[in-house]
Amino acid sequence: MIDTSPSPPARNAAKAEVEQGARFLPKLDSDGLIGAVVTDYDTGTVLMFAWMNETALKLTFETGIVHFWSRSRARLWKKGEESGNTLHLREARVDCDQDMLWIRADVAGAGVACHTGAHSCFYRTISTDADGTLVLTRDEI
Amino acid sequence: MIDTSPSPPARNAAKAEVEQGARFLPKLDSDGLIGAVVTDYDTGTVLMFAWMNETALKLTFETGIVHFWSRSRARLWKKGEESGNTLHLREARVDCDQDMLWIRADVAGAGVACHTGAHSCFYRTISTDADGTLVLTRDEI
Repeated sequence: MIDTSPSPPARNAAKAEVEQGARFLPKLDSDGLIGAVVTDYDTGTVLMFAWMNETALKLTFETGIVHFWSRSRARLWKKGEESGNTLHLREARVDCDQDMLWIRADVAGAGVACHTGAHSCFYRTISTDADGTLVLTRDEI
Repeated sequence: MIDTSPSPPARNAAKAEVEQGARFLPKLDSDGLIGAVVTDYDTGTVLMFAWMNETALKLTFETGIVHFWSRSRARLWKKGEESGNTLHLREARVDCDQDMLWIRADVAGAGVACHTGAHSCFYRTISTDADGTLVLTRDEI
């Protein structure tokens, strides 16, 4: 049986290429997806988190409009396709091991990124109440 | 056979409770984990993305020091335990369907959140070169 696993130096080279190189080598998970944190370009507010597959990635960079893969609906999802609250790509970043994206965008339309009507999906803070229970407080940002 | 699935109104009530309620009902994935986007409290820079299990969540709120579950090492991970670059919790938020956290934190020590030595893991931007290939440019934020 031939051992086809990379030797340690090869693994290190690959790791260095992924972490320090200029090639975009997105590491998709077992479902073919990569996560994307979306922030408001002007304010830095985290608007939402969603997943992209290869097609969503391609369309996002080709069109400048952010596309995702909807896991719940199992289909390509042009965010805002119905509401008009599309996300316009201003900057895209990738993390050290290339398994997560940071998308900085402008929200078109009514400026609403969340399906609940909030600007950001993260409209509640978590804190500890007098009993030591973690509770939520609506506090839009 | 008795159908134990929630009736549509019950499902709606649960959805409303999750999305609009004051109870923290984190939705863990099949591995018992919830994702956490960490941003720098002062600047809004996205520093890193990692996963928490129930213990990591509990310790984070009890101690004010951000803990994760390391998937690669399969163990609890107090971020910065070796480097001293611990993350100090300033604010925690949860998204609409309670399956993602946004942690706003201060980075102690040398202010480095990434294992590569960068302040943020997202030290490279993605752009399209003249050939239409997506390439990375180091551009720390």
